[in-house]
Order: sequence, then C-alpha cells, then structure tokens
Amino acid sequence: MHVGILTGGGDCPGLNAVIRAVTLALVNEAQASVTGIERGFLGLLTRQVRPLDARAVEGLLAQGGTVLGTHNRCDPFHFFGAAGADCSGQAMAYVRELGLDALVAIGGDGTMSIADRFSVLGLPVVGVPKTIDNDLCHTDRTFGFDSAVAVVADALDRLETTARSHGRVMIAETMGRYAGWIALEGGIAGGADVILLPELPVDVDAVAAFCRTREPHEGYTLICIAEGVKLQGAGFTVREHIADSPDPLRLGGVGAVLQQQLSQRLASEVRHTLLGHVQRGGSPTPYDRVLATRFGYHAAQLVRRGEFGRMVTLQGDTIGSVAMSEVAGKNRIVPVDHPLVATARGIGVMLGS
Amino acid sequence: MHVGILTGGGDCPGLNAVIRAVTLALVNEAQASVTGIERGFLGLLTRQVRPLDARAVEGLLAQGGTVLGTHNRCDPFHFFGAAGADCSGQAMAYVRELGLDALVAIGGDGTMSIADRFSVLGLPVVGVPKTIDNDLCHTDRTFGFDSAVAVVADALDRLETTARSHGRVMIAETMGRYAGWIALEGGIAGGADVILLPELPVDVDAVAAFCRTREPHEGYTLICIAEGVKLQGAGFTVREHIADSPDPLRLGGVGAVLQQQLSQRLASEVRHTLLGHVQRGGSPTPYDRVLATRFGYHAAQLVRRGEFGRMVTLQGDTIGSVAMSEVAGKNRIVPVDHPLVATARGIGVMLGS
Amino acid sequence: MHVGILTGGGDCPGLNAVIRAVTLALVNEAQASVTGIERGFLGLLTRQVRPLDARAVEGLLAQGGTVLGTHNRCDPFHFFGAAGADCSGQAMAYVRELGLDALVAIGGDGTMSIADRFSVLGLPVVGVPKTIDNDLCHTDRTFGFDSAVAVVADALDRLETTARSHGRVMIAETMGRYAGWIALEGGIAGGADVILLPELPVDVDAVAAFCRTREPHEGYTLICIAEGVKLQGAGFTVREHIADSPDPLRLGGVGAVLQQQLSQRLASEVRHTLLGHVQRGGSPTPYDRVLATRFGYHAAQLVRRGEFGRMVTLQGDTIGSVAMSEVAGKNRIVPVDHPLVATARGIGVMLGS
Amino acid sequence: MHVGILTGGGDCPGLNAVIRAVTLALVNEAQASVTGIERGFLGLLTRQVRPLDARAVEGLLAQGGTVLGTHNRCDPFHFFGAAGADCSGQAMAYVRELGLDALVAIGGDGTMSIADRFSVLGLPVVGVPKTIDNDLCHTDRTFGFDSAVAVVADALDRLETTARSHGRVMIAETMGRYAGWIALEGGIAGGADVILLPELPVDVDAVAAFCRTREPHEGYTLICIAEGVKLQGAGFTVREHIADSPDPLRLGGVGAVLQQQLSQRLASEVRHTLLGHVQRGGSPTPYDRVLATRFGYHAAQLVRRGEFGRMVTLQGDTIGSVAMSEVAGKNRIVPVDHPLVATARGIGVMLGS
Repeated sequence: MHVGILTGGGDCPGLNAVIRAVTLALVNEAQASVTGIERGFLGLLTRQVRPLDARAVEGLLAQGGTVLGTHNRCDPFHFFGAAGADCSGQAMAYVRELGLDALVAIGGDGTMSIADRFSVLGLPVVGVPKTIDNDLCHTDRTFGFDSAVAVVADALDRLETTARSHGRVMIAETMGRYAGWIALEGGIAGGADVILLPELPVDVDAVAAFCRTREPHEGYTLICIAEGVKLQGAGFTVREHIADSPDPLRLGGVGAVLQQQLSQRLASEVRHTLLGHVQRGGSPTPYDRVLATRFGYHAAQLVRRGEFGRMVTLQGDTIGSVAMSEVAGKNRIVPVDHPLVATARGIGVMLGS
Repeated sequence: MHVGILTGGGDCPGLNAVIRAVTLALVNEAQASVTGIERGFLGLLTRQVRPLDARAVEGLLAQGGTVLGTHNRCDPFHFFGAAGADCSGQAMAYVRELGLDALVAIGGDGTMSIADRFSVLGLPVVGVPKTIDNDLCHTDRTFGFDSAVAVVADALDRLETTARSHGRVMIAETMGRYAGWIALEGGIAGGADVILLPELPVDVDAVAAFCRTREPHEGYTLICIAEGVKLQGAGFTVREHIADSPDPLRLGGVGAVLQQQLSQRLASEVRHTLLGHVQRGGSPTPYDRVLATRFGYHAAQLVRRGEFGRMVTLQGDTIGSVAMSEVAGKNRIVPVDHPLVATARGIGVMLGS
Repeated sequence: MHVGILTGGGDCPGLNAVIRAVTLALVNEAQASVTGIERGFLGLLTRQVRPLDARAVEGLLAQGGTVLGTHNRCDPFHFFGAAGADCSGQAMAYVRELGLDALVAIGGDGTMSIADRFSVLGLPVVGVPKTIDNDLCHTDRTFGFDSAVAVVADALDRLETTARSHGRVMIAETMGRYAGWIALEGGIAGGADVILLPELPVDVDAVAAFCRTREPHEGYTLICIAEGVKLQGAGFTVREHIADSPDPLRLGGVGAVLQQQLSQRLASEVRHTLLGHVQRGGSPTPYDRVLATRFGYHAAQLVRRGEFGRMVTLQGDTIGSVAMSEVAGKNRIVPVDHPLVATARGIGVMLGS
Repeated sequence: MHVGILTGGGDCPGLNAVIRAVTLALVNEAQASVTGIERGFLGLLTRQVRPLDARAVEGLLAQGGTVLGTHNRCDPFHFFGAAGADCSGQAMAYVRELGLDALVAIGGDGTMSIADRFSVLGLPVVGVPKTIDNDLCHTDRTFGFDSAVAVVADALDRLETTARSHGRVMIAETMGRYAGWIALEGGIAGGADVILLPELPVDVDAVAAFCRTREPHEGYTLICIAEGVKLQGAGFTVREHIADSPDPLRLGGVGAVLQQQLSQRLASEVRHTLLGHVQRGGSPTPYDRVLATRFGYHAAQLVRRGEFGRMVTLQGDTIGSVAMSEVAGKNRIVPVDHPLVATARGIGVMLGS
C-alpha cells in the first residue's frame, strides 16, 4: 500500500504528531510506504514530495509547525498559480503517477472541502480535522486548540501580576475571527475578569463601567478579547472586521483600539498585548500530542479499512468519523447559552454586554 | 445560605480552582456565605475553619495544592485520633453549630465514601471528584490528571535528548499504584518506546529483548513505568507492591529495580528517574483549570438546586452528576482493549509483554 | 532595629523575592522588625504600610509583581497629588513617626534619584537596583531581565515553527525604549535572523533586502525589534518615539509599522506580535530568583553595617555597592561594539543597517 | 580552512547551541568548512564524521543533547576498545587524512585533558568548557548549569505545594557527586528550607531536629540534597559514595536513604523524588543559549587567530580563555565561606550541620 499525506491551511501545534502517527501506524501495521506531499495541495501541482518512514518521523511528536510545510490559499480547483484555472486534473495525474492508494489530508474546513471534491473525482481520501480555533463541526475538539489556550492562559497569568502591582487595566488580544473559543477557554483558564467574543455584542461603555466598579477594591482588570470582536460605544462603532478596515488606526488590532477607547474613559492606565501567531506556534501540549496521535492512528485505520471520504472526529471521549461533505464549509461558533458561557458568568466574569 | 467546603485525600493541581469556583458561584449567584473546613474531614473534629469570599479566593485559580489543607487518613467514622472510634456525631454537631446548609466535599473515592455516610446521617452533601490517577468511576476525566501527564511528558522530553546523545536506556517512574492512566497518556505524550502499566503483565526479559532490537538503529530506549507494575523475569519475581515490600532493595521504587534488572541484561547503560510527588504539585494546566472551574460551578448549582448526595461528573464534554453511592469504593483501571492501548501498540510502542 | 521597604517604578519579576530576602535576613540575623510601605513612595504620603515577617513573606520567592504595589509617577519632592508641591517633609515626618531606622528602596534610576534626595535630608537609605531593561549603570545585571529575555525567547521559538511552516516573515516587538538589551539577548536566545535595536539606525529597505535573500533558501525570516527603534526608509521616516507620535497609525507599535512597510516590499506574508507587559509579568526565572535573593540579602547587610546612601550592584559574579548618587539619572545603552553585537553579527544575524 | 568539532563526556543542554555558533561563525567569517566528529573522540577512531554547514545546524539552538552524540569513557590514549592501548596515533592519522586545520573540543575536564595531550602531539585544539555541575576551574559559569538549576527549581516549586497541603517533608535529590552547585543554586531558587551539599558534613539527627522545629508553624519542610552527600547520624554512617556502595539499600539514591532515616525520626510523612537525568536533558534555558552562543563564537575566533591549546572561559561578564593544561584534572567545589552559602544561611536555610 502507498499512502500520501499533506497538511493544508494555517499551521497548528500537533500537525507533526499526526504525520508521525499516520506514518508509524501504516508502516507498523500495514507495511505501507508513505509519501509526504509538501506545502499542502500545492505539492501535488509543483510535484514536491518526500518519502516518510519511522526514521523520518523520529522526534516529530513534540515539534511545532509542520515539516511538510503548508499553504494557505492553494485550491487546485481554482489555482492561483494559473489565474484561477482548474488544475485538479493535473494533480490527479500526479497522484496516479506516484501510485498513491490513498491520501490523508490534514486541515480545516477549506482543506476538507478541496479533499471532498478530489474524493468525488475518485481519489480515496481520509481527512484529519485541524483548526486552532476549534470551530470545525462534528468534532468536539481539535489538536492545537489546547496549545493555543495554554499560550493565552500563560500570558494572562503574567499580565495579572503586573496589572495587580500597578492597579492597571490589561488587555490581551487572542486569535478568533469568527469563533471565540480560544478567548473563552483561555480567558477562563487565565482568570480574565472580562472576556469578549465575536459572538456577543460588546459595548465599550459597559466594559469601562465594569472596570470602574473594580477600581476601588481589586484595583485592576484583566481583559481577554478575541481579534474578531466588533466594538461599539457612544459615538464609536467598528462594524467591519478590524483586519479588513481601511482605517490605519486599526493596524494594531482590536486590542489597540480597545486600549485607546478605555483610556479615554478610565482613570486607570490601560495597556494591551497582541499575542498573534505565538498562539499557533511551538511544541504542542501533552493533551494535543495525545489527541493528534489518536487522530493520526485512526486515520490510518480508516485507510486500511477503505473507509474513504470521511474525516476523523472526537465526540466526547470517542474517536470516530463523519463524511467530509458534512464538514466542508461549516463552522461552529460559541452559542450564547453554552455551558462555558454560563460558567464564566456564574463566577463573575463579564462577557459581552 | 451557608455552605462549607473541604478537600480530602491526596492533593492535586486544581483543588484551589474548584474552591474558588464554588465560592464565587455561591457568592455571586446565591449571596451565600461560604466556610472553608481545614485539613479535610479532620477540620470538622478539630473545629478548624475559615471564612471564604471573593477576596479570599483571589489568585487561587493558578495555585497548586489546596489552601484548605487536606488529610490522607481522617475518617470520622473510624477516627485515628480516637483509637478508631466513631466520631461522626461530633462532626455532625459541629456542622449544626456552624449552621451549614450544605457541604461540598472535594476528593477521591475515599472521600466520597465518607461523604456518602454523612449524607445518610442527614448532611446535605455534594461531591466533586478528585484523583490524580484518573481512576474514579462515572467520570471520564478529573482535574489534576492533565497536569500530571504534562509533568511526565516534560520529563520524557528531557530524557529523550540525553538518551539519544549517549545511546542509553532511560526509565521514568510515574505514579499509578493500580491504574496506569498517567503512565499511558504521559508515555504517549512524551514519546516513550516502552510503557509499562500495572494492568498488564511485564516480563523483564521481553523488555530487555525489545531494547536490544533498538540498539543497532535508534540506539536508545525511553521507558515509562507506573509505580505499581509487578515485574517478573527469569529467576526474578516481584509479587507484592513495591512499597509494601520488606526488601530494602525496593526503597528506590520499581524504576530502580528495573534499572538493576536491565543493566544485568543489556550492554547499554541504563538510568532511572523517580518523578514522585512532582507529578501532583504545581500550578494546574489550563485544561485542568477550566475543568476544575466547571466542576466547581456545577457543584454550586447542585447545592442551589438541592440535589444532594450526588457527585459532579464529566462524561464526554458534558458536566453532569451521579449518586455518590455509585462511586464510592470503585476504581477504573485501564482495560486491556482500551483504544489508547491499541493506539500506542499501533505506533510501535511496547506495552506489557 | 526597624526597617522599611518599598518598591518604586515599573514592576518586574523578582521584586517579591527581594522583599522576602531583605525581610528574612533582617529578622533572622538582626531580630529587626520590618514594615512594608505600599505603592512606592506614595505610601509614605498616604500612610499605607503593613508589617512584614517570615510568615508574611512565605511563598513570595516565585511570585511575580510586587505585593507592596508600586507607583510609576510618585515623587514626593514634586507630588502629583499636591499640584507638584514638595511633600518630602510630610514623608520624613511619617518615617520618624513609624520609627524607621532605615529604608530599603527597590527601584530604577528614578527611584534611586528620589532615594538619594531623601538620603540628603538625613534618611538612612539603601537602594536595590531594578530595571527590566537592564540599563542601570554600575551593575552588570538586574533581576527581571533574565525573565524578560525568557519570554522573548519563548515567543521567538513559537514564531519560528509557524514562520518556517508557511515561509513567512514574523516580527516580535519587545520592550526597550532607549536600550536594546532585551531585544539583543532575547533575539540571540530565540534565534532571530534580524535584531533591531534603538541604538542602531534601521533602514527598512535594507531589512527587506535581507529578507529577500533568505526567501529562496530558508524561506522565512524571524525579526526581533525593540519598541524604541526609529525606522526609516525610502520615503518613510519615524523620527519620534512611536508612543509619542500623534499619528494614529502607530497605536499598534513599531512592529505593526514594520509589518506594514515590509508587506509593501516583499512577496512573503508578514505578521507581527506585540509582547508588551507579558515580558514584565509572571514568576521570575530561577536565575532571577537567585540574583534577587542575593541583592536582598546584601541590602540587609548594608543596613546592618550602616552603609547608607548606597545601591547594591552585581559586577562580574560579585555583589557589591555604589553610591546612589552615581546611579541616579544615568542609563546604560548597548554600545555598538559590544561583544554580544559582534557575536550576533558573527553568526549571521542582521543588526541595524 | 577546515575545522573539526566534537562533544565529549556527559551531555548537557547547550551543546548543540555551541556546535551551531562555531559552525556559523567559521562559515560566515572565514568561509571555513566544518566537520562534525561523532560520539566524542570515539569518532576519530571509528571514522564517523558528518559535514556541518548553515543548513545542518538550523534549529539546533534550542535543541537539547548533542546531534554529534558523545561518549563518556573514550580516551584514545587508553582506548577501551583496544584493551587500554594507546590509539592516539591512529586518531592523529585520521585527523591528517581529513585535512583538519583545527579541532574544537567541547567537554569537561576529562575532555580537556585528552585534548591537551593531542595538543602536545601537534593537533591545533581549542576547548569549550562543558559541565552540568559548574565545577570546572577558571570559568565562573558553564552552559547547561542554568538549565539544570531551572529543572531543580521547578521540581521544588511543585513539591512545595504538595508539601504544604499535607504538612509533609519532601526531599528532592539533585545531581552533584562532588560539587554541590546545582543543589545550592537550585535549592535557593526553589525555596528549599534545607540544602545538603557534598562539601558540608550532614548529620541526619540535626536535619530531623530542624524539621521538627518547623512542624508547629510551617508544618512542612522542603529538602534539596545533592547525590554525593555523605549522610551520618546516631548509629548510621554512609562513608562511601552512594553509587559505589555494595548495599542494595542505596540503589534508590541518597534521597531514598534520607527518606528512610527521617521517617524513623519524625511524625510527619516523608517523600522523595530522584530528578536524575531530567536535569541534563531538554532545551537549554535562554541564559544557556546565549552563553553557549558566546562560547562557540569565541572558540571560532581563537581558531581564526591561531590561539591553540586554550579553553574558552567566562570570568565575570567577560569571555576570555585559559591554557587547557591549567584546567585538566582540577575541580571547583563549593567553598564553605562562599557568598551563596552565607546568603542561604542568612535567610534561614539549613545547610549541612
């Protein structure tokens, strides 16, 4: 058996651990040969591949990023390198030339959507879900999310000591354009006093009022805000996503804007931090290494059993799978009545307005 | 409403986070007063308590151990301080004197068993499960376990670099007298080549043979062994638990014994490490902080709803509860056909013999 | 003997460890009583103090921030709370009322300058140097600096994995308005390819050219830039410090500006991260805990020996002291011919232009 | 120019960072070719080498261990592989065959001693000091030591929370057969209450008495003990080094023996942890990465300037060098009147008896 592996979309801690587990399981249990395709689907067009075996994946478990490289925007069905032309046939020809019996595609909903279309063309594909934002449907958790949450919690731990020493308001901006899972779990784990999510309306005046109630007693406030939050307030609205805004004010991110707005409303000093890609880099947490290994192992089982067109999932504590077509193009945002939202509110955290 | 909280049994990262969440939720949502009982059930006999409020629990989220203290062996129904006499009436009298409307008991199966007996005497109790070993029934995960796994994985990461540099066999002994969950998940997360669990028979000669097959290629072997493993081999058997053994050889733990046995059988140098209580100390991981907060919040809900005699649980991704009597005195060990066992074997890890 | 302690200026990991060491040494070796003055010199005017003893400082060694609180802008000789009037007499009166035989002032060059003026008024003062930026004269290192460098190195480690996976340019902005020590040591420790310091002229076009030379081979570039860098380039100059700039573009910091400028010049995607106060928060590194303990112990010795008007120093590996008047108002920036600059250049790092 | 590099003796965090810095500096500044010799001096006899260039050393800065491998016991002048015969001529012949103009030997006093003898035979050698124990003469610090101290401090942090929760005595055994630097700095950094060094006599009864004085107030005691400590007490002496002892009791290390002895003398429960090789594995701390980079860069300068027979040193904050013959066969132990000993005693730590 000859199996290809690729990683698509943004990178994420745990990708290498999946590559390792898929490879080891296929080599050990099925004596398969494994080929890594470089830079996501782009490698199928540029014909960049490398052989993978036990030796090649040694040490990958704890390594951040993806040794195969990835590409954010390569869709062979609308290839940017050919003015948007459909190059899927070219990719399929290369797959046949390599003699691949199956392809394991690790990626988010974009990758699943492309993989599903290849599946329709007759390529036997198995998907492994990857999203730092934890917003894929049909899977409770994805690897990388716990690592991102850990980075946010560590930053909030650090900010808390300096906020408290000075009696300041500290803002940490996290990833999360549409789904606030990282800000929500990271904020709870890091003891944030205010957690602002894209899913909830946020009134800057209400946030300022909340900070003011804390000034006499606690003297400081720790705010965790997702990048996709749409702020509004008296005489102030950010309707579009901050990154799409033509206003140069917003180059620094929504955290910088919130700092500016709160500074105008509070006596306390306000500072912000932009965690950025630090959240998606580095060695995966042990939790993510175990999850990535389980995902990779299960993907190898699907390949061996010939269950193609399916994506691995975690539901509760059980690894299973779902048709890739069910996943593509959908996202899971934080429901306003999610138990974690109630938990945070219940312990006194301000969420939205 | 007036609610008491205590922590019983061995300590565990996340206990303080539960204390904080219970307190904040009861204060915020029910304007309750909260009293911390010190050193587990012992405090009900020695009358050691302290008031808890939002200020008192500030900063507890990330703090290891338990600010209330705990006690391993205090059972008021057979009190060691009174030659094994039943002092439960004395404890009940103190509870009435304090005017407690409910008690939240955080602990393992021993604590649940005592709490359940108090429940029968008419004390309204809610339980929160705590076990570093993750071996309580009716709950998929308990806080502290992820933190212990992280300590093991970090140690294995470190040992791997030195094992590889010298071509050595490195042994890390983890907690786990009866249940091997920590060794299993920690071993997978840390990339162990051999994982030895109390649940599986372990033949020293087979382990040595496995190490020898690795000598020509990888040149080193990383072994993760739970403290409760019963080793056997040609002319060598450890039938009893190592800690109960009268043999002074075993003071150093089963890892030291395995080092000695492998040294006699291998050309490679063998070294061991005893992680011990490092695994149950320190700040909880973000995962454990979130889980402990959810548990604490849910315990407060059970108290408010008057659902007594129940222990909080996590099943899949859902927080629920179960009758405490269902939990007491039972343990969950690693089934030989558990998916994680299959996963580890599938990627080439040696488990048991 | 009765000794007061205060912490002034910005906070820093290790302040609590100094407070602990001063207190323990004075209590153990001189049976002194110790009083903590809250919020820096402000506490001498607002009369906010607390007693310190062995119990009060338990657990402070590893704790970030300062339990005494601090204040950035309080100079009793020009008190902001009294329209800039000289309130030093009021402070001196309170010191006499408390019966302090000596004051230990932990802080930067501002704090040393105020302490020195109190010294002239007859207050027996000992100074302990604190600066996250490591830019105080007469001491080779100050506690907190190693912790800040560790935060920067960890962020660069994480960014490196994602930069490499995507072939991107990643920018991390560090603290350092005038002195680039954090960016220099943090950049070397984190393997930055480009390190930009306030002390060296930086041409954006030269940086872009350097990134382009890396595109074909390494494919990514890791940039570490101090907040105080003054960027310039073709048709582009930032003459003033970014934080003093009226241009809203610069709210996001110099890293955001560099991202914008490089994006215009490069094919690769460019991302930035603003580490901000995360660098000055959290538990001190072991190195900083030892240094802070040594500083605190030595301050206690100076008090006991009656060597007042002096600040503790580290020169080479030796703890000593210098007259506070020698330190006040001076700063140590990175000399262009510093051995670390030569080291970084020697291993191929681009520094300045 | 063609330069060889090897790593000898026990491994240590930072070895790879030295290899990287030497290679990058020689390639960038002298267009040299560089050859890595595998497994220390053994590679000169087994003829195992690999080319090193910028690409080969990418990512090595943060990687623990040594990619070249090392060997503890290989002395070509008394080669274990040839029944102790002198094989130095064979090694010299291979050096000439490779065409090496110089050799950089990274190692401890054993490695320096061998390197010095090769130097006498006409091999142009430069030494880089490596010792996890920080006990080499003529250099204040060596890389790896800060990393080992950090592991010890982290373990003590964790043990402190569990010791405090249970009111227990916790023992952490560190490396240090003859020199107690790791236990001393690690113990101070981790807040140990008792620090036991090989350099100071240790009476078990005095330690027990100290623990007893803490029982009523603090309730727990944290003990940091170096592996080479020679315990004695009433009716109890360990004269030989624990590892050389024929007594099977001592297989678990001196920490296990101390646990047994204290358990017999105290009411409190006593637990121990053996950190072992965890202390010498893993990614180097940022401090060690900078120091290793400085050492490697300076070694390259010595090679370029033709200053052979010398070992790089750190004195105060200055990198320099010393004749290798000055270093070989000497060790630096903790003087009983060292400032750190006085500091620890001054803040109330028990050291020795």
